Amino acid sequence: MVEDDAPQDREPIRDVETTHRAFYAAWEAADIAAAAQLWLDSEDISIAFPGGSPTWGREAVLEQLAEAMDFTRGIQFLFEDLRFAVQGDVARLTCIEHVLMPGDRSFEEVAEAPLSRLAVSSTLVRTEVGWRLWSHMSGPILTDVERE
Amino acid sequence: MVEDDAPQDREPIRDVETTHRAFYAAWEAADIAAAAQLWLDSEDISIAFPGGSPTWGREAVLEQLAEAMDFTRGIQFLFEDLRFAVQGDVARLTCIEHVLMPGDRSFEEVAEAPLSRLAVSSTLVRTEVGWRLWSHMSGPILTDVERE
Repeated sequence: MVEDDAPQDREPIRDVETTHRAFYAAWEAADIAAAAQLWLDSEDISIAFPGGSPTWGREAVLEQLAEAMDFTRGIQFLFEDLRFAVQGDVARLTCIEHVLMPGDRSFEEVAEAPLSRLAVSSTLVRTEVGWRLWSHMSGPILTDVERE
Repeated sequence: MVEDDAPQDREPIRDVETTHRAFYAAWEAADIAAAAQLWLDSEDISIAFPGGSPTWGREAVLEQLAEAMDFTRGIQFLFEDLRFAVQGDVARLTCIEHVLMPGDRSFEEVAEAPLSRLAVSSTLVRTEVGWRLWSHMSGPILTDVERE
C-alpha cells in the first residue's frame, strides 16, 4: 500500500532524470545499443509514438525505436516543463519535447511551428543498475486554439 | 529494488481493469464526482488529452476532465488490446480506445474512421481503497499508412 501525497525525495528524481536524458542522448547519437540498455530487461515494456498504437515486448519496442532513430537521424531534443512523480520503485515523468531536425534554424522558430512539440509520458522502474524505462508514449501537441 | 520479469499475478490486473472501466463508465455518465473518486488523492496526478500538453495537480486535472466530459456528452468507449503491467504497488495499462459519439451508427464504421481511435496509457497506484489513477494520456492513432 502506498500513502497518498508521500513526500518526494529529490534523489530518485535526479536519477530518473539522468536515465531520461541518457535515453534521448542515445537517440540523438542514433545509438540503439545504448538506448536498449536504458530499458527494463522485461517483456513488460511498451512504447507508443505519435499516430501509432502501443507496442509491447522487448524485441518489438527496440525494433520500433531503431526504426524511429533511423528515420530521425540528426534530430535534437529540448525539454520543457519536465515533471516527476515517484511511488515506491516506480517513477513517471511528463514533459513537452521540442524536436529540432537538421536544417532547422532556431529554437524559437521550432517552438512556434505546429507539430514540432510532443507531449511525453514515460514510466521507469528502479533496478539494481539504476532507473530503467518501463514505458514511453508521445503525442503531438496542437497549436493553441482559442477555446470558449 | 524490483526484479525484472517478475511473474504477474492476475488478481491485481483484474482490480486495475475494474478501476479503468469504472473511470470510463463515470465519463460515459458524465459523473465527474464518480470519476474524481477513482483518481489518487494527490497533487502528483497528471492528465494529457489528444493535442494537449500534460496537466498536473488534482484541481487542474479534475477541471480538465470535467471540461472533457461536458464536451463529449453521450460518448461511448470501446477498448481494444487492453494490456497491463504491474511493478509493486504501481500498475500501468495501454489500450486502443474507440470513441462512439451520439449519432454514430456502428462500431465497424467508427473503427475505420480516422481519428476515432486513440492510444491510451494510464498508470494506477494501489491504495487502501483500491487502485487509483495516477496518470492518463491519450493521443490520436492515425489511419494506417504504408511504410517502406
